[in-house]
Amino acid sequence: MAAVWKRGKFTAVVLLLQLIFIILFGIFVRYEKSADARAIENSVDYRRGGANANNNPVKGLYPMFQDVHVMIFVGFGFLMTFLKRYGFSSVGLNMLIAAFVIQWSILLSGFLHLHDGHIELSIKGLLTADFAAAAVLITFGALLGKTSPLQLIVIAFLEIVFFTLNEWVGLTFIKVADVGGSMFVHVFGAYFGLAASRVLYSVDIEESRKEGSVYHSDIFAMIGTLFLWMYWPSFNSALAVGDDQHRAVINTYLALASCCVVSFAISAVLSKDTKFDMVHIQNSTLAGGVAVGTCADMMIEPFGALVIGTVAGTLSVIGYKYITPLLASKLKIHDTCGVNNLHGMPGILAGLGGIVAAALATEDIYGKSLYITFPARAPMFNTTELYEVNRFLTIDAGDGRSAGAQAGMQAAALAMTLVVAIVGGIITGFIVKLGIWDGPSGNNLFDDGQTWETPDDFEESLIENGVAVKRGALLGDAKEPDDDESKI
Amino acid sequence: MAAVWKRGKFTAVVLLLQLIFIILFGIFVRYEKSADARAIENSVDYRRGGANANNNPVKGLYPMFQDVHVMIFVGFGFLMTFLKRYGFSSVGLNMLIAAFVIQWSILLSGFLHLHDGHIELSIKGLLTADFAAAAVLITFGALLGKTSPLQLIVIAFLEIVFFTLNEWVGLTFIKVADVGGSMFVHVFGAYFGLAASRVLYSVDIEESRKEGSVYHSDIFAMIGTLFLWMYWPSFNSALAVGDDQHRAVINTYLALASCCVVSFAISAVLSKDTKFDMVHIQNSTLAGGVAVGTCADMMIEPFGALVIGTVAGTLSVIGYKYITPLLASKLKIHDTCGVNNLHGMPGILAGLGGIVAAALATEDIYGKSLYITFPARAPMFNTTELYEVNRFLTIDAGDGRSAGAQAGMQAAALAMTLVVAIVGGIITGFIVKLGIWDGPSGNNLFDDGQTWETPDDFEESLIENGVAVKRGALLGDAKEPDDDESKI
Amino acid sequence: MAAVWKRGKFTAVVLLLQLIFIILFGIFVRYEKSADARAIENSVDYRRGGANANNNPVKGLYPMFQDVHVMIFVGFGFLMTFLKRYGFSSVGLNMLIAAFVIQWSILLSGFLHLHDGHIELSIKGLLTADFAAAAVLITFGALLGKTSPLQLIVIAFLEIVFFTLNEWVGLTFIKVADVGGSMFVHVFGAYFGLAASRVLYSVDIEESRKEGSVYHSDIFAMIGTLFLWMYWPSFNSALAVGDDQHRAVINTYLALASCCVVSFAISAVLSKDTKFDMVHIQNSTLAGGVAVGTCADMMIEPFGALVIGTVAGTLSVIGYKYITPLLASKLKIHDTCGVNNLHGMPGILAGLGGIVAAALATEDIYGKSLYITFPARAPMFNTTELYEVNRFLTIDAGDGRSAGAQAGMQAAALAMTLVVAIVGGIITGFIVKLGIWDGPSGNNLFDDGQTWETPDDFEESLIENGVAVKRGALLGDAKEPDDDESKI
Repeated sequence: MAAVWKRGKFTAVVLLLQLIFIILFGIFVRYEKSADARAIENSVDYRRGGANANNNPVKGLYPMFQDVHVMIFVGFGFLMTFLKRYGFSSVGLNMLIAAFVIQWSILLSGFLHLHDGHIELSIKGLLTADFAAAAVLITFGALLGKTSPLQLIVIAFLEIVFFTLNEWVGLTFIKVADVGGSMFVHVFGAYFGLAASRVLYSVDIEESRKEGSVYHSDIFAMIGTLFLWMYWPSFNSALAVGDDQHRAVINTYLALASCCVVSFAISAVLSKDTKFDMVHIQNSTLAGGVAVGTCADMMIEPFGALVIGTVAGTLSVIGYKYITPLLASKLKIHDTCGVNNLHGMPGILAGLGGIVAAALATEDIYGKSLYITFPARAPMFNTTELYEVNRFLTIDAGDGRSAGAQAGMQAAALAMTLVVAIVGGIITGFIVKLGIWDGPSGNNLFDDGQTWETPDDFEESLIENGVAVKRGALLGDAKEPDDDESKI
Repeated sequence: MAAVWKRGKFTAVVLLLQLIFIILFGIFVRYEKSADARAIENSVDYRRGGANANNNPVKGLYPMFQDVHVMIFVGFGFLMTFLKRYGFSSVGLNMLIAAFVIQWSILLSGFLHLHDGHIELSIKGLLTADFAAAAVLITFGALLGKTSPLQLIVIAFLEIVFFTLNEWVGLTFIKVADVGGSMFVHVFGAYFGLAASRVLYSVDIEESRKEGSVYHSDIFAMIGTLFLWMYWPSFNSALAVGDDQHRAVINTYLALASCCVVSFAISAVLSKDTKFDMVHIQNSTLAGGVAVGTCADMMIEPFGALVIGTVAGTLSVIGYKYITPLLASKLKIHDTCGVNNLHGMPGILAGLGGIVAAALATEDIYGKSLYITFPARAPMFNTTELYEVNRFLTIDAGDGRSAGAQAGMQAAALAMTLVVAIVGGIITGFIVKLGIWDGPSGNNLFDDGQTWETPDDFEESLIENGVAVKRGALLGDAKEPDDDESKI
Repeated sequence: MAAVWKRGKFTAVVLLLQLIFIILFGIFVRYEKSADARAIENSVDYRRGGANANNNPVKGLYPMFQDVHVMIFVGFGFLMTFLKRYGFSSVGLNMLIAAFVIQWSILLSGFLHLHDGHIELSIKGLLTADFAAAAVLITFGALLGKTSPLQLIVIAFLEIVFFTLNEWVGLTFIKVADVGGSMFVHVFGAYFGLAASRVLYSVDIEESRKEGSVYHSDIFAMIGTLFLWMYWPSFNSALAVGDDQHRAVINTYLALASCCVVSFAISAVLSKDTKFDMVHIQNSTLAGGVAVGTCADMMIEPFGALVIGTVAGTLSVIGYKYITPLLASKLKIHDTCGVNNLHGMPGILAGLGGIVAAALATEDIYGKSLYITFPARAPMFNTTELYEVNRFLTIDAGDGRSAGAQAGMQAAALAMTLVVAIVGGIITGFIVKLGIWDGPSGNNLFDDGQTWETPDDFEESLIENGVAVKRGALLGDAKEPDDDESKI
C-alpha cells in the first residue's frame, strides 16, 4: 500500500487538483460576452462584415498575448536549460507548472472579480493568467535543480494564493500603477523564491558538482534569453491602451537596448581576463525590461528609458558577480538562476522608478491622460472638460490624490509585496520541506536522472563533463544518478 | 546514362514539378482584389489614411497566419528532431516538403474554387495552404526515417490530391464544421501516413539501433513542441471570425493546459520507476489541441474544453505506452513519431466531440450565431429577424438541417476522411515502394548519412551513442552509414 | 596604466558611446505624437473605447515589427551559430551589435528627419532601426570569427553612418522603391562586409581548422534559418500599406517557397555524391526573400514571384559551390557565412528585378496606385480625379517621371549603393585593422575561447571534433585557444 502511494503520489495529487479545477470551472467559469455566441451583438457584428468583426477584443489583444505566451513557455523554459544535466526538467517542468498555474490563477483571480456569481473569461483573462505563471516560474528559477515535481506543484498552488491577494490589494485598494508587473510579478516571484530557497538550503547544494553548464546547454539558454528580450515590450505594454501602450513599447525597447550593451561592457571588465560571462549575457541583458516595467507607460522620455536600462544592466552584472555568492555564503540563500539579479533587484529598481515617476507626474506633462495612468489622482467627482468647440472630455471620479500621495502609495505597494513574498515564501518553504514531497538531495540535485527517463548518452555525459578527473576514474560515478529512482 | 539519371533523378523530378507549378501559376493565379493595385477601392483607401488601410484583410489575418506558419516550419520541423541521427532530415526535409506542398495546394484547392477561370490568391489562401502542409507533415511523422527525399516528394504530391478532394467534399457538400481541421488535417494526415507505413514495413525498421534520441536532440524537439503548443490557439481559430474566434482561442488554450498537466500525471504513473517519459511530454501535451479542434468554436463552455484536454492527454499517453508497440508487432504498422497518439486518436476524439456538440447545438445556446457556426442548419430561405426596435438581422438560407442531421453529417465526414486517408495511403504506399524512388533500408534507416553531407562529429556520434558496447568495438560500425551513398 | 587600458578598453569605449547616446537622446529624442500623453486626441480616444484606441499606429505595425525583431535577434543570431566553436560569439555578439546599432541608428536617421529640432520616435522608428541593424549583421556574417568585439563595435559605428546616408539619398533624392530594403540593406551590408573582409584578410584565416560545424551546431543554425524564412514576408511588407502590403506578403511567401524547393534540387545535383549540403539549406533557401525584396509590393504577379525565387535559389547554391571559393583564392575575400550568396548577389538580383518591374509599371497595371508605389511618377502638380459619381481621388504631386526614368533611377540607386558600400567597407576595414582594436589571429580565429568564459566541455570538444588525428595526439592542442586570453 505504501509502495502504491509512493509510486502514485505525484499522479494522484495532480489528477485530484485537475479534477477540482474542472469542477470549479464547471460551476463558475463562463465565456465573457465578446466570446459568447448568445450575445446578439456578436451575431449582428458578423453580418456587418470583416471590419466590424475585427472589433472583437481578441483581435486587438491577441498578438501581444501570444508574445507573452512565448515568453512564459519558451522564454522562461529555455532560459533555464543552461544546466548541463537539468534540461529536461527546466523546459519540461516549466511547461507543467505554467499549464497548472494558468488554470488555478483564472479561478482565484476570478473569485475576486465575480460577475453575478460567475467568472467571465476572455482573452484578457488568459493574458493575466500568463502573468501569474511568470511569478511562479521566477520562483522556480531560484529553486532550479533543488525541488521535485511534486514540491513544485505544491509551491505553485500556494504561491498563486499569495500572489493573487497581493496584486489584488495593490491594484484595487492601494491603486498603484505597475503596467509591466515589475513589483507584483517580478519582485514577488523573486523574493518568494529566495525565501523558500533559504528554508530548503542544504550543504549538498553548495557541494554539487552538477551545477554548471556545457557549451551547447548555454546556447539552448540563449533561445530563452532572446525570446524574453524580444517580446518584453509586449509584456510591459499588453495591458496598456493607445498612446500608453505605444509609449510602453518604446520605453521597454530602449531600456533593453541600453541594458544589453552595458551588460556586455560591465561583464568584460569584471572578469579576471576581460572575457564575457555567459551567465551575464543570458540574464543581465534582460534586467532593463524588468527595471522599466513599472513606469514603462509613464512619461519618462526615451533618454529616461536608456538610463534605467543602463543602471539595471550594471546592477544585475554586479549582482551576479558579488551578491549571489554572498547570499549563498552569508545568508545560505542559494539562487540557481540568480533571480535576485534578474528579477529581484531590477524589480525593486522598477518600484523606485515608479515612485519617482509618480512623484513627478503632472497634468502639464500628461495632459488629461494623467487620470488614465493614475486613476486615483482624478478629482473625486466625475468631471467634464471642454477640449474643443462643442467637444467634451469626461474624466471618471478618482480619489483626488496628489502626486506625492501617489508616490507614497507606490512605495507602500512595493513594501507590501516584499513582505508578502518573503513571508509567503518562508511558509511555503517549510511546507514543501516535509519529507512527504520527495525533495531531491545529494546526487539527485541538478540532475534529470531522478525524474526523467533519459537517453543513453545522458550517463556518459556525466563522465565527459567531469573535469580534472581522468575518464576511467569517473566510470563508477556514472551509476550514481540512478541510486534513488522511484520519486517524482 | 543510367548513372546520370541516378545522380540527377531527385533534381530532375523536383525541378520539373517546380517548372509545372510556375507555368500553372502563370496561367491561373492572380492577386485577389484586396491585393491588387488596380482595384480602385485600394487606391482610395490609401488616401483616407492609415485607419482605413488597416481594413485590408491582411491586417486582421496576418498575426494568426504567422503563428500557423511557425507551427508548420519550426513546430513540426523541430518536433521531429528528437532522433539522434536524423535531425538534418527532420528539420530540413520538413521545410522542403512544406514549401513544395504550399505551392501545389494553392493550385489544387484553387482549381476547385475558380473565379472567372482564375485562382484569386490572398492571405487566406496562404493560410489554407499551410493547413494542407500540416497534413503531409503529419504523414511524414509516421514515416520519419524510413523514406528518401524523393519518396517524400511523391507522397506529398499524391497526398495533396486526396486531401484536397476529401476536404472539399466535407466542407462544400457534407457541410460540416471543423474549424481547427482536426478531421480534415489531423485524422487525414495520420491515417494516410499509417496506411503508407504499413505498406512500406520491413523488418529492418524494427531492428534498427538508430531509432532513439540523445539528450540534446530531445531538447531540440521541445522547441517544436512548445511552438506547436503555444500557437495552437491560432491554428484552431484563424479561420473563425469575431466571437467564434475568441471562443476558439479560449477553448484551445484551456484544452492544452489540462492536457499538459494530465500528460505529466499519466506519464509518471505508467513508467516502471515513476519517471516522466520525454516522448509523452513532447507529444501528448499537444493532443488537447487536436482533440478540441473540431468543436473549438462551439459553445462547449470552458469546463468542456478542460474535459476534452484531460481525456486527450490520457488517451495519448496510453497510446504511446500500449498501442504504438501493438500496432508495430501485431499490424506491422511502424509509427516513428507516434502520430496515431498525437493526431490520429485525438483527431477521432475531436470528430466525436464535434458530433456531440453539433447534436446539442440549439438556438437557445447559440442565438442566431447558430447559423454561422452551422450554416446548413439555417432555414431554407433567407430570413430577416427583428432584434431591436427598427434593427434587423438577415440570415442566409441554409438546408434547414436539424441538430441530429448535422451530427449525422459530422459523423459521415469523419468516416469518409478515415476511408479516403487509408485508401489513399495504401495506394501511395505501393507507388513509393517502387525501387525507382530509392527508399532507404538497413543501416540507412533513421540516418542522415545517406542524404546529407555531415560534419566530422557525425560518425563519431554513432560510436558515442552506442550502448552496452565498448568504444573500440564500434569503430568498425562507424563506416556503415556511408555504404550506399549516392541516393537522395 | 597600459595594462589597465588594455583590460578596460572594450568597457571604456562601449560605456563612453552609450553615455553619448544617452546625452543625445536627452537633447533630441521625444515621443512622436501618437505616443505622447499630452496630445489631447490621445486622451479623447481612450474615452471612446477600445475600437478607437486601436487606431493608434502601434496596433497596426506591432505584429510585423515583432517579426522583424525576431529576425534580427534570433534569425541572424542563430543562423551564425553553425560554427562549432563560435556559437557564443555568434548569438551573443549579434545581440550586442544589434542593441548598439538600434540606438545609434535612431539618432543618425533622426538627425536627417528633424521636427522642430527634435527626433520624434514612434514604433516606425523602432522598425527602421531594426532594418539598419540587419545591414550591420550581414556585414558581421562576412567577418564572422575574424574580428574582436571591439572591432565589431567600431565597424557598427562607422557602417551606420555610411548606411544612413546612402539610404537617405536613395529614398529622398533618387526616389526609388525598395520596400524590403534589398538594395539599401542587403546589398549594402554584404558588400560593405566583403570589402572590409578583403582588407582584414590573412593566411591564418584560410588555414584555420576551426571553421567548420558540428552536427548540433548545424541544427542550432536551422533555428535562425527558419525564423528568417518564416518572417521574411513581414520584413518585405512591414513598411507597405493596404494592398501593397498584402501583395508584398504574397510575393515574398511564394518566392521563398520556390527558392526553398529549388535550393534542395540544385544542392543535391552539385554535390559529388548527390547529397544535400547543410550550408545551402541554411542559407540559399532564404535568397528568394532577398531577391524579391525590391519589387515585393509591385505587380509582379504570383508566377513572377515564383520565378524570382527559382532564380535566386539556383544562383545562391551555385555561389556557395563555386563563387565563394573563387573569391577566397583569387581575390582574397574570405566570406565566412557566404553573405555574397545570400545577400549580395540575390540583392543585386532584387535591384535588377526592381529596374525591370519599374520599367514595366503603367497605370493600366497599377491603376492610380502607381503613384503610391512610385510617388515620383505622379504628375508634377496635385491632381484630382473623379472615380465614381461625386467621389474624387486626390493624387499628390510628384516629378512626372516616365517608367524608363524611374527604371534608370532604380539602377542609379543600385550602383550608388555598391560604390558607397565598397568604399565604406574598405575605409572601415583599414581603421579596424589597426592593432589597437585587438583583432584575433591564428588559433583565436573562429574560436569563442578568446572572448568568452567557456564551460569545461569546450576544450574537450576541440579534441573530439578533431578528424583524422588520433585522440591522444590532440591533447596538446587543447590548450592553444587560451594562449592569448586578455583581449576582447
